[in-house]
Amino acid sequence: MRRGSNQLRLADFNQAVVLDVVRRSPGVSRADLQRESGLSSQTISNITRRLIDDNLICETTPGETTRGRPSIPLVIDRDGAFSVGVHIDPARLTTVLLDLDGEVRLQRQQRTPQATNPPEVTALIADSVDALITEAGVDRNRVLGLGIAAPGPLDVQAGLILDPPQLPNWRNVQLRSDLHEATGLPVLLDKDVTAAATAELRSSKDSPNAFVFLYLGSGVGASMVIDNQVFRGTTNNIGEIGDIIVDPEAEQLEWSGRRGGLASACVPEALVLQAAHLGLLPLPNLSDYLAIDDSCTALCDLAAAGDGGATRILERAAGRVAVGLGVLVNLLDMPRVVVGGPLWNRLSTAFLPVLPELVAQELVVERENVAVESSAVGEQVAALGAAELVMDHFLAPRASALMVGP
Amino acid sequence: MRRGSNQLRLADFNQAVVLDVVRRSPGVSRADLQRESGLSSQTISNITRRLIDDNLICETTPGETTRGRPSIPLVIDRDGAFSVGVHIDPARLTTVLLDLDGEVRLQRQQRTPQATNPPEVTALIADSVDALITEAGVDRNRVLGLGIAAPGPLDVQAGLILDPPQLPNWRNVQLRSDLHEATGLPVLLDKDVTAAATAELRSSKDSPNAFVFLYLGSGVGASMVIDNQVFRGTTNNIGEIGDIIVDPEAEQLEWSGRRGGLASACVPEALVLQAAHLGLLPLPNLSDYLAIDDSCTALCDLAAAGDGGATRILERAAGRVAVGLGVLVNLLDMPRVVVGGPLWNRLSTAFLPVLPELVAQELVVERENVAVESSAVGEQVAALGAAELVMDHFLAPRASALMVGP
Repeated sequence: MRRGSNQLRLADFNQAVVLDVVRRSPGVSRADLQRESGLSSQTISNITRRLIDDNLICETTPGETTRGRPSIPLVIDRDGAFSVGVHIDPARLTTVLLDLDGEVRLQRQQRTPQATNPPEVTALIADSVDALITEAGVDRNRVLGLGIAAPGPLDVQAGLILDPPQLPNWRNVQLRSDLHEATGLPVLLDKDVTAAATAELRSSKDSPNAFVFLYLGSGVGASMVIDNQVFRGTTNNIGEIGDIIVDPEAEQLEWSGRRGGLASACVPEALVLQAAHLGLLPLPNLSDYLAIDDSCTALCDLAAAGDGGATRILERAAGRVAVGLGVLVNLLDMPRVVVGGPLWNRLSTAFLPVLPELVAQELVVERENVAVESSAVGEQVAALGAAELVMDHFLAPRASALMVGP
Repeated sequence: MRRGSNQLRLADFNQAVVLDVVRRSPGVSRADLQRESGLSSQTISNITRRLIDDNLICETTPGETTRGRPSIPLVIDRDGAFSVGVHIDPARLTTVLLDLDGEVRLQRQQRTPQATNPPEVTALIADSVDALITEAGVDRNRVLGLGIAAPGPLDVQAGLILDPPQLPNWRNVQLRSDLHEATGLPVLLDKDVTAAATAELRSSKDSPNAFVFLYLGSGVGASMVIDNQVFRGTTNNIGEIGDIIVDPEAEQLEWSGRRGGLASACVPEALVLQAAHLGLLPLPNLSDYLAIDDSCTALCDLAAAGDGGATRILERAAGRVAVGLGVLVNLLDMPRVVVGGPLWNRLSTAFLPVLPELVAQELVVERENVAVESSAVGEQVAALGAAELVMDHFLAPRASALMVGP
């Protein structure tokens, strides 16, 4: 019988407050904790003893002693708890194992071979999570839960994948309960762009943080961080930007989405269609996300090798993406854009040098600087964010009801 | 010598805290204040005496007495302080006088005869403010300040109008200091859409409040309220949405903005161009905002009278505005839209019955309800918001540095 969080006795609010202070301020003493938390010395003493017994924090050697009894620094026991984050992109499945100290212990990226078949993807995820935990050699009883970053639209409260344009055959899939059943772990489901913004925010030293996150994968999406908070929208379905018209003159080709929309400008399927139309590459099977992904990689390789046609396709894509970013920056008055997602590594060489200037041309308010940056986290940004959301759920001192669990 | 806020001694933070509680909870006692503010009974006693001496609050008769000394209810003295809000639309100037109790004492709307000439507009505003205060018969020494809602882009910190597309010849106009000089009042400058969202938020009983505000006047703009907070963007220039492409097939006509953009779909100048192109109305002088505004009124009257050509222009405009709203709702995941501004009264009959369904067709996430509502405040929404921002500046217990003052 697998167990989740219960053995770790994390439900207590005061305990969560104390653990949160130790996470944010490594080396605090019991006296510091008392001052910061407003709890009594007896309560602090009880809670720290319990946290030490549960291997969530540990004592370290004090530095220079002050007068009287030296205060003992408390730090997180990084092996005390873990969370797993999974990012489902129709072409790529990314898995990360996060420790209590916020470090990624292990990560894996693999192809999603049967994105059109929800039960097979569920089984694949369960196997991947098992393999990750086993390979990392950590105690499964110390894995708090599993966070899933998935394309929207989602019903986050109910743990449902509704009907993502990028995941045909996924209609009202109970991914959260299915994965709970398959793994025995508590499971949290959230939107890919929300998870990505969460990880990007954590990795940033800026304060106050305010940026738009542009997600480029098998689909395109956006999220935003305002005043150090990830804004999720009223139904947790932030950032559906694929239908924003970015080129009134665009051809439709065999594209089934909105003509001239942002999705038609930059998702792999649309880029591959353009390349095939120009005879640069054979047209792959458009219901096979792996074939599309490979073909898109081939297109980017062609451009990197100097092929004129491939270069023009990516240049045109950059121009169209800039129009879409212009819409976001003009509307939100947020002149900092962070770009990431599984497609970004392949496009960044062509996009990054030209995007700031192209976006600047779209702006109504003259700005000295439009920052367009690559994700500081990298390709695993959404998976890492999903793992961080799980840690927060269990460890942050606040109520939440997004999990199913034992 | 006119005086502004200094005589009212509002600078004290604790006093602001107490006044704020009385504003929000009419009838509180000194004991309630002590409990709510955390201040000592001596401090509460001193502050309430000072506020009473300054005519900012007053004592009322207690209701049923409890054992011991009856507690005396304290309420706002509505004549204790006022603020003036002015909304500059190139075609219409709206002025409101707000009292300390949050009631509009007097409001005026007039045509803006010389929108292209900043000094004349400044003089007109100063005269209108004088006339409003005089007509209302209030003590000018009790007018805390003047709030200006203006089209962006603005430099709110510096009090500058930068170069609004809707206000030609206004480039780097120091409107805040010019108006301070002309009126002797402290002046606050903010964006029209931000002021409008502020007033709309105050008028709403919903909680938590989250909506998009669509502003329709001589220009088009948007703002948003998230979790009961008006989001202003990082440079206070939220909501430039006029360039969002809403109809790839749109004609350019003599329109100087982006072809097929949201501004070309719904601002008076663009609607009037379309009407003239169809021979429905003569083309007015396009550098005369009053002529454009009158011509737009005539077009809306024609549609209301059943004219087929005019009706089709407004129907097409509604469809295009719905595409723009679809972009906002899809991006922000905020399925509630409030529409207002000086043009809205003329369009609402044609727009309101069709917009919810048209917007719903644009949405990526299926939603049971897309609410599209008329502003609960009405045409003076931006002017009222500007007056409320001034009250907040002086009365809310927080620091701010947006004002120039005596």
